[in-house]
Amino acid sequence: MAKGSIGTKYKIHFEPGNIDVDVEQGGNLLDAALLAGVKLNASCGGTGSCGNCKIIIEKGTVESTRTDKVTEAEYQQGIRQACQTRALSDLRVIVPVESQLSKHSIIHKRKQTTTVSRDSAVNVAGRQFHPPFQKRYLELVPPTLQDNTSDLSRLKKRLRQEPGLKQIFIDFESIKGLPQILRQQDWKVTVTTLELPDDPGITPASQIQLVQTEPGDTRERNFALAIDVGTTTVKAQLLDLYRGKVISEYAEYNGQAIFGADVITRIAYCTKPGGSKRIQSAVVNTINNIIQCLSIDSKVKPVEIGYISLAGNTVMVQLLMGIEPKYIRLSPYVPAASSLPTVKAASLGIRVADHAFISTLPAVASYIGGDITAGVVAAGMDKTERLTLYMDIGTNGQIVIGNSDWMASAACSAGPAFEGGEIKHGMIAVEGAIEKCTINPANLEPEINTINNQKPRGICGSGLINIVAGLLETGIIERNGHFHTDIESRRVRHSIDGYEYVLAYAGETQTGKDIVITEIDIANLIRAKAAMYAGLMTLVKSVGFKTGDIQDILIAGAFGSFIDIKQAITIGLLPDLPTSRFRFIGNGSLTGARLAAFSIDFMMQAKKAARMMTNLELSENGDFMNNYMAALFLPHTHIEDFPSVKARLPEGNTRSARRY
Amino acid sequence: MAKGSIGTKYKIHFEPGNIDVDVEQGGNLLDAALLAGVKLNASCGGTGSCGNCKIIIEKGTVESTRTDKVTEAEYQQGIRQACQTRALSDLRVIVPVESQLSKHSIIHKRKQTTTVSRDSAVNVAGRQFHPPFQKRYLELVPPTLQDNTSDLSRLKKRLRQEPGLKQIFIDFESIKGLPQILRQQDWKVTVTTLELPDDPGITPASQIQLVQTEPGDTRERNFALAIDVGTTTVKAQLLDLYRGKVISEYAEYNGQAIFGADVITRIAYCTKPGGSKRIQSAVVNTINNIIQCLSIDSKVKPVEIGYISLAGNTVMVQLLMGIEPKYIRLSPYVPAASSLPTVKAASLGIRVADHAFISTLPAVASYIGGDITAGVVAAGMDKTERLTLYMDIGTNGQIVIGNSDWMASAACSAGPAFEGGEIKHGMIAVEGAIEKCTINPANLEPEINTINNQKPRGICGSGLINIVAGLLETGIIERNGHFHTDIESRRVRHSIDGYEYVLAYAGETQTGKDIVITEIDIANLIRAKAAMYAGLMTLVKSVGFKTGDIQDILIAGAFGSFIDIKQAITIGLLPDLPTSRFRFIGNGSLTGARLAAFSIDFMMQAKKAARMMTNLELSENGDFMNNYMAALFLPHTHIEDFPSVKARLPEGNTRSARRY
Repeated sequence: MAKGSIGTKYKIHFEPGNIDVDVEQGGNLLDAALLAGVKLNASCGGTGSCGNCKIIIEKGTVESTRTDKVTEAEYQQGIRQACQTRALSDLRVIVPVESQLSKHSIIHKRKQTTTVSRDSAVNVAGRQFHPPFQKRYLELVPPTLQDNTSDLSRLKKRLRQEPGLKQIFIDFESIKGLPQILRQQDWKVTVTTLELPDDPGITPASQIQLVQTEPGDTRERNFALAIDVGTTTVKAQLLDLYRGKVISEYAEYNGQAIFGADVITRIAYCTKPGGSKRIQSAVVNTINNIIQCLSIDSKVKPVEIGYISLAGNTVMVQLLMGIEPKYIRLSPYVPAASSLPTVKAASLGIRVADHAFISTLPAVASYIGGDITAGVVAAGMDKTERLTLYMDIGTNGQIVIGNSDWMASAACSAGPAFEGGEIKHGMIAVEGAIEKCTINPANLEPEINTINNQKPRGICGSGLINIVAGLLETGIIERNGHFHTDIESRRVRHSIDGYEYVLAYAGETQTGKDIVITEIDIANLIRAKAAMYAGLMTLVKSVGFKTGDIQDILIAGAFGSFIDIKQAITIGLLPDLPTSRFRFIGNGSLTGARLAAFSIDFMMQAKKAARMMTNLELSENGDFMNNYMAALFLPHTHIEDFPSVKARLPEGNTRSARRY
Repeated sequence: MAKGSIGTKYKIHFEPGNIDVDVEQGGNLLDAALLAGVKLNASCGGTGSCGNCKIIIEKGTVESTRTDKVTEAEYQQGIRQACQTRALSDLRVIVPVESQLSKHSIIHKRKQTTTVSRDSAVNVAGRQFHPPFQKRYLELVPPTLQDNTSDLSRLKKRLRQEPGLKQIFIDFESIKGLPQILRQQDWKVTVTTLELPDDPGITPASQIQLVQTEPGDTRERNFALAIDVGTTTVKAQLLDLYRGKVISEYAEYNGQAIFGADVITRIAYCTKPGGSKRIQSAVVNTINNIIQCLSIDSKVKPVEIGYISLAGNTVMVQLLMGIEPKYIRLSPYVPAASSLPTVKAASLGIRVADHAFISTLPAVASYIGGDITAGVVAAGMDKTERLTLYMDIGTNGQIVIGNSDWMASAACSAGPAFEGGEIKHGMIAVEGAIEKCTINPANLEPEINTINNQKPRGICGSGLINIVAGLLETGIIERNGHFHTDIESRRVRHSIDGYEYVLAYAGETQTGKDIVITEIDIANLIRAKAAMYAGLMTLVKSVGFKTGDIQDILIAGAFGSFIDIKQAITIGLLPDLPTSRFRFIGNGSLTGARLAAFSIDFMMQAKKAARMMTNLELSENGDFMNNYMAALFLPHTHIEDFPSVKARLPEGNTRSARRY
């Protein structure tokens, strides 16, 4: 190995990006990347344990410690972990896309989505701007020989003069450095308090804790995170609690995906030795990556983030918290806790301020999580007299019906079709996915739209609904989902998977292969939509209503936001109601988490709503099974329930409800 | 290195103790020692970081990882860390005394010192037996599909049916394993709650936390520790909270001693880089050693200890908690906190149950700590109408005066003479220390008693008082502490340190050297007793009383328990009052810590007492300085204040109060 003399500097050239940076001899390459602004993924913080910061040394000499994260084959190819590698010459370094921190980026930073002013008159979606995590600036009277009470007593005495702080609990960690902090800026300090809302009938009143003291006036630096932990995706917003606004937003796939795409396989994985710990670390790493990205984007250091408001489905929250999820999937489907105590973020391995706590939105049941409570309250369903239906359509679908007086919920397992799972050319909704499709009734040729207008790579959930609705409306398929065998079109053909319809030919696609939809794909979609619709029907009937009584239907969730209402009605996923009654509310979970960080009232409302919701277990419900069987047609066995669809379908497709 | 074949067993012979044990080839020697019942000190738990488990390999072959805890010289001598060493042949191993766990043992296990019955009629020193740390056995109704509320909600609902548990806070850690725990013994569980007493005017009511859940009925296994963290010694009692008794008791020197014998040098040490951390670890190691000893003695596992009640002086508590102590020694002498929040023992590195919390007795001021509050309340001073004086005599002396209506305190720095410090042949009160001495007035020959009747090794504090009182009463020394130069006795002689009195000749001692008391020693003792007495005089006067008004004098502390009241009056350490007014209360700090573990009422009383006490700062007090100057005589400049002493002294020793 060639070694230079002491003080020698080497030039490190990074690709992609064509970035050069000088380092000392022996300089660490992860540090060099940071210096160069190359966003390497180092979710373990450079200890070598995550194996995410792999780089390719294309030219030059390095000294590297090899861990079990680098295979022999990789090592031979010049792949090294940046954090374990030191420069011994000028280098040319390639950063593979999978080591780039932004590779997972799903949402790119958006401009402020929400701004609430600090003016007390202004409110947060009808609520007072009153973050549970607050900073106050205090000036204390210095001690004298005549008044030499302890630092903490002096601080408490001053705190008691503040409105609402008559009683305050002290978190031990907040007083460890108290003596220096008080004296550093001449007895002028900023205290941070965390207010935990009361739980009527359980705790007597809001509990306020002192969680941090800082010298001087730091009120303007008060940051929090709102996080939505989804089974597929983790989304977060960095919040400025002083100004009441969203600073930055980021999302990544949930790193648990490698242990299974759905909650059931992840619960099963937890039974393996060390499984729970790995599952927990995976999502914690995802969150830490997001925090890194938000931090780079916003110049807010992770240690300045003092509070996390988090919503997620019950399984995701239990996995993150390290609580045994086994019994969620076993009858009678009992979650460990619906309302979890706040917990120190650091105790879960989340890299924010040491004093940061995580609060989670309360769940209702094993499959009605805090994400639903968050969305229901964010949408104002608990404040309206109108009969409202809330639907979150996805692998695990959730439905809530009710209004400010009462609410009932049900969850139904739709399977992965809505997210492109178990669909031959299915994919999630990223660039190149067919998201729209109309079929020309004259020539049965498709007109497709893809996300970002890229060449097609596959079909995402919303595209799938479009395609099946089109195939039905043009009479290419029957109401049982089977292809009419007498269609004359080059697009319809028989392959090893049975009949299929060609959406794009090999020459038009990114993959270089035909993109098709098969009869099996259609059957899978029918089962998914049948589960959702049967859940809806069962729930609505159980509370004594008919679908026609529903005044507002709120469609939540990333998937829901992109579906075409009319076509979703065509396939019988949604009830046949005027489209004016439908409203998209987007990511209710993230919105709710954010509102809970901006207003303590929100958390109190969420606790109330969660307690108020009666959950109907569908899994062993006879009505549900009957409704499910009846929904295994397009749009439904009883086409009379879908008059607008009946009117649209070609003559031959309206008559029978033959079982396929 | 000779290596045997797989499965080979080797014989390890340990000395002292003549113990043999068989191990597999490559067997770890710390494990071997544990197996053999050899109590090796492994305060870091065998990670190699403490360096306490050093052994000497006298014969045989080992394989050992060398850390920086073993010097090159030690390594050459065959010294290894047991935890880092594996057997590769039969061995002969010497365990040096400093690696033996019991080396520090000061108190050996005593029979139960206190027993309170669980009968509700019985009380704890006048208080209800009501530990803040309680176990309750509960039987829950199992969930069904119709009632599948979360595990935590089910548990909370059941808890709310228990008396006093209407409102309960949930510690997150207590619910992590909840799903399995509830199901393991068919929904029969034991819950552990921690009750934090209210702080009138600050918290509205006692706060009860759920800290642990266990399957089945474990009420009979409920253990706590009472700990007194002294500057010199750490004492602990293992408590059975189910039966209300002391199971075992142990003490060790505070491991911080290597950083300085007194609080001031330890505070100074904390300013060094890493100093605070080392100081903290030292006392935590001491506590962990004591826990190991208590555990071995009692068969109670450390993880079964769920609560710690701790008292100590303000500096010791801040050092243990890792709170910056700097400002305690700087005017205006402000402690960080007088009443500390409870804190998880694990967060300080104390090896007990993960869910264990430490509560500390509240302090009054920088030099009036929780040890004093504990003792004052344990002695019932806050419940009597009689004017009471509480004295803790030591390097840092504390005095409290008052009764149930009011209390005032003062602290005075006496220096180390009472503990044998700065005394030529001074030593602490262990085997071989001269603890009593009478001087025959006829021939001026001493008659000495030593602890455990061993050959003398030195003089402890109580012996020192005896000797000086004897020298004064026999006229060997004058009231200014100087030797009469005209004494005719072989015992009085002049050496390089000036005049001295020989207590034991070389041939009679363990050290093989003469044991003497010098004029300098006497001057040091006079300064120490003058500080205590001046503090007492200043405090008594400041509250408008005279010493004669004091109805009860309580002498606390390990040192105090062994002094002879009459002789302490002779030298002017205690006021000249009838001996019937004096009472020894022993280790008030440990007693108070124990009572606080047995009764939540005790902690409430302690908080009240601490708030009620007015502290008088003596360090910049003019009166104190005058009183101190006047007390620099034996017994005092104003011998009229000591009529009984005056009557006892030989004629020539009563006349003048010449300054020395």
